[in-house]
Amino acid sequence: MQMISKHIFAAVTIVTAVMLATPVAQAGPVSTDDLLKAQDNSAEWLMYGRDYRNWRYSPLSELTPENVAQLHPVWAMSTGGQLGGLESTPLFRDGVLYFSADYARVFAVDARSGNIVWHYEPEYDQGLTAVLCCGPIHRGLAMKDDLVYVARLDAKLVALHRADGKVAWETKIDDWSKGITTNSAPLIVNDHVIIGISGGEFGARGYLKSFNAKTGALEWTTYTIPAPGEPGSDTWPKDDSWKTGGGPTWLTGSYDAATNTLYWGIGNPAPWSTDRIPGDNLWTDCMMALDPDTGKMKWAFQYTPNDAWDYDGMATPILVDLTIDGKPVKAAVVSNRNGFFYAIDRTTGKFIYAFPLVEGINWTSGIDPVTGRPKVNAEMRPKSGGATIQPIVPGLEGGTNWFPPAYDPDLGYFFTSVNQWGMGLTAWEKKKLNYKPGDWYIGVDYQMYRMGDTIGHIKAIDIANKKVVWDVPSSLPLFAGMLVTKGGVLFTGDQRGRFLAYDAKTGKELWKFQTGSGINASPITYQLDGKQYVAVLSGLGGDPSFYYSAPKGGMLWVFAIDGKVQEGSAYNQQVIEKMLPEFKK
Amino acid sequence: MQMISKHIFAAVTIVTAVMLATPVAQAGPVSTDDLLKAQDNSAEWLMYGRDYRNWRYSPLSELTPENVAQLHPVWAMSTGGQLGGLESTPLFRDGVLYFSADYARVFAVDARSGNIVWHYEPEYDQGLTAVLCCGPIHRGLAMKDDLVYVARLDAKLVALHRADGKVAWETKIDDWSKGITTNSAPLIVNDHVIIGISGGEFGARGYLKSFNAKTGALEWTTYTIPAPGEPGSDTWPKDDSWKTGGGPTWLTGSYDAATNTLYWGIGNPAPWSTDRIPGDNLWTDCMMALDPDTGKMKWAFQYTPNDAWDYDGMATPILVDLTIDGKPVKAAVVSNRNGFFYAIDRTTGKFIYAFPLVEGINWTSGIDPVTGRPKVNAEMRPKSGGATIQPIVPGLEGGTNWFPPAYDPDLGYFFTSVNQWGMGLTAWEKKKLNYKPGDWYIGVDYQMYRMGDTIGHIKAIDIANKKVVWDVPSSLPLFAGMLVTKGGVLFTGDQRGRFLAYDAKTGKELWKFQTGSGINASPITYQLDGKQYVAVLSGLGGDPSFYYSAPKGGMLWVFAIDGKVQEGSAYNQQVIEKMLPEFKK
Repeated sequence: MQMISKHIFAAVTIVTAVMLATPVAQAGPVSTDDLLKAQDNSAEWLMYGRDYRNWRYSPLSELTPENVAQLHPVWAMSTGGQLGGLESTPLFRDGVLYFSADYARVFAVDARSGNIVWHYEPEYDQGLTAVLCCGPIHRGLAMKDDLVYVARLDAKLVALHRADGKVAWETKIDDWSKGITTNSAPLIVNDHVIIGISGGEFGARGYLKSFNAKTGALEWTTYTIPAPGEPGSDTWPKDDSWKTGGGPTWLTGSYDAATNTLYWGIGNPAPWSTDRIPGDNLWTDCMMALDPDTGKMKWAFQYTPNDAWDYDGMATPILVDLTIDGKPVKAAVVSNRNGFFYAIDRTTGKFIYAFPLVEGINWTSGIDPVTGRPKVNAEMRPKSGGATIQPIVPGLEGGTNWFPPAYDPDLGYFFTSVNQWGMGLTAWEKKKLNYKPGDWYIGVDYQMYRMGDTIGHIKAIDIANKKVVWDVPSSLPLFAGMLVTKGGVLFTGDQRGRFLAYDAKTGKELWKFQTGSGINASPITYQLDGKQYVAVLSGLGGDPSFYYSAPKGGMLWVFAIDGKVQEGSAYNQQVIEKMLPEFKK
Repeated sequence: MQMISKHIFAAVTIVTAVMLATPVAQAGPVSTDDLLKAQDNSAEWLMYGRDYRNWRYSPLSELTPENVAQLHPVWAMSTGGQLGGLESTPLFRDGVLYFSADYARVFAVDARSGNIVWHYEPEYDQGLTAVLCCGPIHRGLAMKDDLVYVARLDAKLVALHRADGKVAWETKIDDWSKGITTNSAPLIVNDHVIIGISGGEFGARGYLKSFNAKTGALEWTTYTIPAPGEPGSDTWPKDDSWKTGGGPTWLTGSYDAATNTLYWGIGNPAPWSTDRIPGDNLWTDCMMALDPDTGKMKWAFQYTPNDAWDYDGMATPILVDLTIDGKPVKAAVVSNRNGFFYAIDRTTGKFIYAFPLVEGINWTSGIDPVTGRPKVNAEMRPKSGGATIQPIVPGLEGGTNWFPPAYDPDLGYFFTSVNQWGMGLTAWEKKKLNYKPGDWYIGVDYQMYRMGDTIGHIKAIDIANKKVVWDVPSSLPLFAGMLVTKGGVLFTGDQRGRFLAYDAKTGKELWKFQTGSGINASPITYQLDGKQYVAVLSGLGGDPSFYYSAPKGGMLWVFAIDGKVQEGSAYNQQVIEKMLPEFKK
């Protein structure tokens, strides 16, 4: 026999071998203060966007444009499973990397050796994948005290003990069979675990919920679609459409402790054929400000009223304080799926400015410079039962999409990938679309189109000066997040699998490495034993051939200068392995 | 919507995008002369064992014990699919790497960029996996002229055009539903494509077949179990047991052009409870010499008569010419699953010597120094319906197993991994086991045991001096192949995923890199644009937790000094990507 076979083996004895975990320095609890000061903790990465402002800017400066070409892999780790695609941002604390893979599987990995410390594998009911709009991907975790939080794909929020991955508590967010699912990183403010949902394509009525970090008890729910009589309800027809109105909340928000304000991006209305739901459809496609203790809305700014193009306004607001037109402003900025970059006054919700990030935008003739309201080209709005309209620019995947941008406070630059493409849309006849829980509810057929030689662009935006300062084109669409460092290096990846480093100031390509499958995830950097590392997940899943023929995959990669660890570090140490039973007389 | 969904997309338009292959230098045909001189072709790797002697020794010397610690990954490539486990040896020709992954999927990869040139994906009938004893793994390819040959898991031999992967011809080797499957690399001699089979666990009657390389026509079949009246038939009971007698041929053989002789290892008898089939059971557990033009047996040497321990004699004979006891000999040497290292005179089939490679061997009290016949300890032979016997050393996975050894002619050393472990065996009652096509037919329950602190050992054997010169222990079992280079470096991997380099002379560990999943495959080295590269597949599949908890995976890794390519090389060049349809008015 060539190699032992499980079924015959099992006939004799059950293996009782134990995985002896890698010894890890006792991890200290993550306090509220730790989270509030995450931006100053250069060694660690404690939340999805690195800090509450979602800057993804690290104060580490070992890596520079001069030396980054000496980066090499230090180790890699396979995530195994079903290769459903990796889109997560890892966390790093006390020598351990924590990250979510496809299907919300969670790994804790010893950063010194690449060995798995623990692994959480959710089990799901049959049928779940039918209500995942976009594959079994997952975007990240949160941590507080001694717990790690993961929102499972089946809309369960789970707290895991950080030391061993055992479940501390588990709570139901919603009933996934209605098409309400979760895959984003929760945001933790004090002891509130705040989580949004996916499900706009299934006619969910979007909301944010807050759960108590210690107990999992529900604290508040804030719906994004007002019920009759609530503020904004006059922007919906006087029927039941608000009950299935979309406005999901499927990315992670930001938080400003100075004003105790939460900022969250709200998705597009359901169905997409919005001639069925005339009105602005508040609070879809909004940036919303809320009180994290109560969930009460403070204000909202709408990007795309009565959105018929899937121009989700879900982008995470990036909180920046800077001078625009000679005036100091506390802004929240986003690159939006509708093709524009927006700066909003985050204290008032007032529009500051917007400008296009892609060329050839044709769903609007422009944004009102005072109100920020777009002037919609009516002929670009598909009519139910009408003809196909094409090309509409940008395509529904957006100018930008879920991939996180980064902000460099030294340069004042905002970095994001932008995709330059178009689409065709045909809205169904009205009678063909009827809401049924758990069924797709968009009412539109669509086709994405390539409009020229390049689709992807990495753009650096000078926020204060309202302009793109550099633009690196790529023939492929880009779907990876950004990381920028004080050392002046911008990291991102592409769908060919190349992990890329650019000079943040100039956009000059400094280094690349082929990781073997596409990169749709977001890099982080951290310091361990005095040395700077960069980590990124690589792995296409689902149907990657839609964009590119790179093979599916699933790996965590860790890089450092010369691929070498700090002298004297216990990096790559040996560990006791899971073994066969020992023979005993 | 977060990312486009296939089913809704498909409702509109079928993507007709074309993968534009990376430009590759026009590959010259692989001639018979190329294969005969493969050992002198330092730049390429043209067959499973690198040359007909199966030395896995490369004349390249850029990498040395002094500089090998500077190795870094150049690129990696995900093999995607179902992560069934990688055990293959890649081939390299004209700038392209060709390898088989799990399920006999074949990839041709541009060695400069890591981009896929073409990909062959077999489709299988339902039920196939039930007759794979040991998972959907695959061990390698062969090439001749402009074709690449793969034996699919379902016992089909397929010739693919090397330029584009299109099928040139396909021929049936056998009916897989009887449990006869194929996963080894064919051996090509002149225009004979010679392939063995798996299926001993299913009561196959083993054989070798030769097919015409140009047409796929069957040329000859040589059974390993004689029919009544044929030579060796007197070593079987006078019943039908020869029809289901095992003796599979599931690894690749060797070839000596000087005498036009093929050497092949033959597996163990079926069932394992050999008190049912008294006699030596020729030609099971033999090294067999054959005429490659006719398949006619020249001679055979049997290692383990009436083998009751799954001590398959399938090891590939390594052909070495050297001086033993003052006499020049043309030897064929193997490390055997029964725990011994053997040297056989390959011109006559005469035993030269054997010595134990593992400690505590207890199925035999020793090998006769003249005949090579073991003196079996009768009490270690399980009796059908009798009690469990344990521990039996070595365990059924062997002293060694299928993983290829290497031979360094400069040192005269043979390198192999050896596993030090034991097993318990219980033979079923006779009436419980009856042959049924496609059913498991071994008649034994078993349990592998760890017998001490270490299982795996990398051993260097001085063949002329009949001794182990160095031994590197590992707590895990080892299942990776060996590569040795003129530069003096030995490469192999472990089940933790570490790719390892040792000083071939001393066994000193020089370098390691964690590839993220276990390495059960065999490394190769080649030269491209004047620079030496090392490539290895990494990926556990199936049920890897039997030995270790490393996650499943599937990657091809390529390494070079400093992770850098030769200056001026087109390595990592950009390619045109598979794209969206272009919008046309």
